[in-house]
Amino acid sequence: MRSAFARASVALRRPGARSQSTVLLMRHGESTWNLENKFTGWYDCPLSDKGHVEAADAGALVAEAGLAFDVAYTSTLKRAIRTLDHALEQSDHMWIPVTKAWQLNERHYGALQGLDKQQTVDKHGLDQVTIWRRSYDIPPPDLDTASPMYPANDPKYAALDAACMPTTESLATTAARVIPYWQQVIVPELKAGKSVIIAAHGNSLRALVQYLDGISNDDITELNIPTATPLLYTLDADMRPIPDADAIAPLQGKYLGDLDAIRARIEGVKNQTK
Amino acid sequence: MRSAFARASVALRRPGARSQSTVLLMRHGESTWNLENKFTGWYDCPLSDKGHVEAADAGALVAEAGLAFDVAYTSTLKRAIRTLDHALEQSDHMWIPVTKAWQLNERHYGALQGLDKQQTVDKHGLDQVTIWRRSYDIPPPDLDTASPMYPANDPKYAALDAACMPTTESLATTAARVIPYWQQVIVPELKAGKSVIIAAHGNSLRALVQYLDGISNDDITELNIPTATPLLYTLDADMRPIPDADAIAPLQGKYLGDLDAIRARIEGVKNQTK
Repeated sequence: MRSAFARASVALRRPGARSQSTVLLMRHGESTWNLENKFTGWYDCPLSDKGHVEAADAGALVAEAGLAFDVAYTSTLKRAIRTLDHALEQSDHMWIPVTKAWQLNERHYGALQGLDKQQTVDKHGLDQVTIWRRSYDIPPPDLDTASPMYPANDPKYAALDAACMPTTESLATTAARVIPYWQQVIVPELKAGKSVIIAAHGNSLRALVQYLDGISNDDITELNIPTATPLLYTLDADMRPIPDADAIAPLQGKYLGDLDAIRARIEGVKNQTK
Repeated sequence: MRSAFARASVALRRPGARSQSTVLLMRHGESTWNLENKFTGWYDCPLSDKGHVEAADAGALVAEAGLAFDVAYTSTLKRAIRTLDHALEQSDHMWIPVTKAWQLNERHYGALQGLDKQQTVDKHGLDQVTIWRRSYDIPPPDLDTASPMYPANDPKYAALDAACMPTTESLATTAARVIPYWQQVIVPELKAGKSVIIAAHGNSLRALVQYLDGISNDDITELNIPTATPLLYTLDADMRPIPDADAIAPLQGKYLGDLDAIRARIEGVKNQTK
């Protein structure tokens, strides 16, 4: 057990010390709409049974690594919240403060939300759908603001400035909310000496690792972050990642777990989109 | 679905309106140490399997009642946090902010924490144990501050002022932290028009309902709040409970569920302690 007294003493002995920070990123486990092959975005579907198992397994990896966290961040979407809860339960961190932020939500998929992926390909063609899914800055068509999926029609977002409510998003516009949240909310916690765990989504995490690892706009759209696989970054005092010997390029953080199996999963997702 | 726009309109139409507030209280489900018949207090044991089922059932009652919550409060102890999580999951409120406050923790049981209840009776006699368990202001013997259970030795309480770390508590000293938290943190949220759900413990909730319902020190020690049974209060603008027709005296709030079964549970707990 970490002693509260010991931690305080370290802080007092090194008042001006600039130490390393750690942040653990985790993409949620499989959701029911992943399973149904639908575009999800801000739609709030739960984890599938497999997703629960994936998230609990990821939590066991976090526990096994013996990591200690002070604060947690997640999105307002239950598939990420529940994934975080599994990790906190498994690693005995249920007591830490959890902030649920829309800024960490999945990319809004616009009018595609709720549509079957295959039917969308049949209707619009693979080239168009690939552009919507994989271009850096071309978003899908806008969601109708009368839709129950539009944030103004969802009590979750009652306190949100209407100007922040997307009708669709590209990876570029997703990054435009994720990165300021990182800089303005999460970095101050890291600089205050706290260890952070973040459970979020494929695209909000893509935006974050692009920023941390300095990945180009072209390369980031090809990067696949596997679901429910803890990804640990050690950051220097300037919040730049310290490259880990076990990192899988182009990332500088390291995945927890069986690295060969993780490499295979990353390649598998790549082939699936071809 | 409640429309965010509709809520805003109501607020604009009645700028000076003083409306009713609702707060739902819930005691956690059975924990592993309830099951093992040990004194628990601030010890952080998880829900038992039965406790998970109880909490999920309670969550289903909350969902069935169609209640809408804006914010949630719980203790730093996982049996209450997990009970809350079940309720939020069942009633589709996983997205609301959750604050985990030590002020809502169970009464600290001092040196009795971790001891078998029957062995304690055998050693100290039923009269003495009944005084420790049921008197209003006589606490059990102090916990040794060298114990790993003392808050200073637990990373959960690293940020807590040492003067707030109990070595033991009576119901009176429990109330001395619960009620200021209610007045200073929760009431402002209720006055801001928010609906609140609180998952906590037998004695922190006893302290709260004693305050809300104006119950005497003698009567409160005889009051049993059943586990994982949602208890709903409607409060007037001055934060006084509006008596519910279905309330079971001396409470003015109403339990959700089968009231005859709940009455039987309350009486059952009473007989158990005789």
